[in-house]
Amino acid sequence: MTTSPTSVTMSQLDLPGIRRAVDARLDVFLTDKEHQAAGHRLPAEVTSVLRNFLFAAGKRLRPLLCVCGWYAGGGHRAQKGVLQAAAALEMFHAFALIHDDIMDHSDTRRGHPAIHRTLTTRHSQGRSTAAADHVGASAAILVGDLALAWSDELLHTAGLTPRQLTDILPLVDAMRTEVMYGQYLDLTSSGHPTDGLEHALAIIRYKTAKYTVERPLHIGAALAGAPPPLLAVLSAFALPLGDAFQLRDDLLGVFGDPTSTGKPNLDDLRAGKHTVLIALALQHASHARADQLRLLLGCPNLTEDQAEAARRIITATGAPAMVEEMITERYERAMASLETAPFAPAVAGALGSLADSAVRRHT
Amino acid sequence: MTTSPTSVTMSQLDLPGIRRAVDARLDVFLTDKEHQAAGHRLPAEVTSVLRNFLFAAGKRLRPLLCVCGWYAGGGHRAQKGVLQAAAALEMFHAFALIHDDIMDHSDTRRGHPAIHRTLTTRHSQGRSTAAADHVGASAAILVGDLALAWSDELLHTAGLTPRQLTDILPLVDAMRTEVMYGQYLDLTSSGHPTDGLEHALAIIRYKTAKYTVERPLHIGAALAGAPPPLLAVLSAFALPLGDAFQLRDDLLGVFGDPTSTGKPNLDDLRAGKHTVLIALALQHASHARADQLRLLLGCPNLTEDQAEAARRIITATGAPAMVEEMITERYERAMASLETAPFAPAVAGALGSLADSAVRRHT
Repeated sequence: MTTSPTSVTMSQLDLPGIRRAVDARLDVFLTDKEHQAAGHRLPAEVTSVLRNFLFAAGKRLRPLLCVCGWYAGGGHRAQKGVLQAAAALEMFHAFALIHDDIMDHSDTRRGHPAIHRTLTTRHSQGRSTAAADHVGASAAILVGDLALAWSDELLHTAGLTPRQLTDILPLVDAMRTEVMYGQYLDLTSSGHPTDGLEHALAIIRYKTAKYTVERPLHIGAALAGAPPPLLAVLSAFALPLGDAFQLRDDLLGVFGDPTSTGKPNLDDLRAGKHTVLIALALQHASHARADQLRLLLGCPNLTEDQAEAARRIITATGAPAMVEEMITERYERAMASLETAPFAPAVAGALGSLADSAVRRHT
Repeated sequence: MTTSPTSVTMSQLDLPGIRRAVDARLDVFLTDKEHQAAGHRLPAEVTSVLRNFLFAAGKRLRPLLCVCGWYAGGGHRAQKGVLQAAAALEMFHAFALIHDDIMDHSDTRRGHPAIHRTLTTRHSQGRSTAAADHVGASAAILVGDLALAWSDELLHTAGLTPRQLTDILPLVDAMRTEVMYGQYLDLTSSGHPTDGLEHALAIIRYKTAKYTVERPLHIGAALAGAPPPLLAVLSAFALPLGDAFQLRDDLLGVFGDPTSTGKPNLDDLRAGKHTVLIALALQHASHARADQLRLLLGCPNLTEDQAEAARRIITATGAPAMVEEMITERYERAMASLETAPFAPAVAGALGSLADSAVRRHT
């Protein structure tokens, strides 16, 4: 693996090359942590589960957007500092997913057992099922905590200038607070979804649109010294796209094919997630159907048959088609913003291509 | 509240004044977060549970040691930057305790319900007991995550110079990694304690001695620009004292009076913590007694009577007296290191007084 992208030119951004370069930063960092742990006789499983998780799959959307933000902000040829800051966002995302899977009772992620499941299996010997579950979840909380701390360390050791650090730290701090509040809203409204569309939209704005798209772009642009008006231009692209990304995610969470998405399509229904999809379905269902749907949603032991019944009710309300329309409208708004944005064609092209893959996906 | 200590002179460090000044930084920060949340219609319970937790009690040992480190490193009159860095350590500690209480199934902390219990009660309406427990624990994971992120934000917004930041960030990163590995060792060895003394000593070194005493002193000293040899002098004081602090904690965890400590004296036994106390008890018990003790330790439903039986076995082995001896030996080693340390008398006096309160406590 190389540590810098091999063929970034301004005629076309080499997204696969950037991805490899970001992964290389993660690999170097984790290898270093593995050596340190071995030197202090600390358990190797911490870094090994994290490595497996990071390299199992993942779209690397946030690091790619961060590097695009760098170019959009006027940066040239992304070097170690920018790539490592981008890698820090992926490490932060690992933290968020690891804790999310515990909170959502999700058993699989990226086609593999979720980290808390892996660690439950590893520590099951000599423990009751309940005790092993608790140790597995607790160990996963700690691995997530370490990933959060290590996302900082990646940032601190990226070799950024004091000015760059000063410029991006407020954005990084804002991103974290926003996503954690978004997760908090998501969690506490789960179990009893309502037809409240505004609340569902607020959740996706915080937990996804700002976190996944807007802040990574801002951070990259700020690394390049971009002024506030440029950050506003990026927001005009990022927020509708980020909303569309989560709307797609919510559809896949209920109607997706688990063999493609790598995660079950029962969890959101079982958790009774308060999504835009569900809010619209409850708004447009008959009283009787809405009652039936409310009964099914949030049932922790929902069977496949019951999930299928819920899907039929949701589909009959027309909610999935409405969500598709919302995705299209937001995607088009994001793409239209690129037409007037002062970005080099290569940058606008890369952002458009990332927008495509974020919205028109099956995984 | 004032934002800087009113009467720090080099003849005597005003520890209560420093404490008030650190608390004032936490108060200002949280008030700001409360206003931000209100402005964005985000749930107020996040900051309110955190505020209640932080201001319910707490020894503020880490911030006080950090400020002592500043003076030990040659700093004069601690101003906002140093006090806020010290406050960041307390916010980090809130994170660590919140997650720790979830992992340890601890229902009370500082004489009040643990945060996950408070949040379970708050979100119990319309949920089964199991669902409410899960939402409460999940919400507490998120509040802990926010406390961790906010400990960074306190550091980033402390107004430190680029040089100060560069000097302390590697120490902060090391501290976090160390304590999380310590917690990991503690967690994964719980449930089946052995007579392995080395392992028990490694756990307390990472989860407490380095985290609670050594790193806060290092961070304070580094803020003052202290050179590496001075950090080594601080370590000679910090590591034996930190070990002694945790040995005291382990004794209180089994033999303490819950009305003084603010936490139950059953949890460590129920969790089957692999502590120095238990390792020594298992080493010195007869085969029959050791078997009986092993049977009791790690029993999640251990009754008061069974706990009392375990305490009797432990006491009969002489382990508590041996731990007391270890505490005394380490305390004396820490105090002796002060005699040759190049600190002003006021600094040595403050460190000695903190060492006293850390080791000779009932809470």
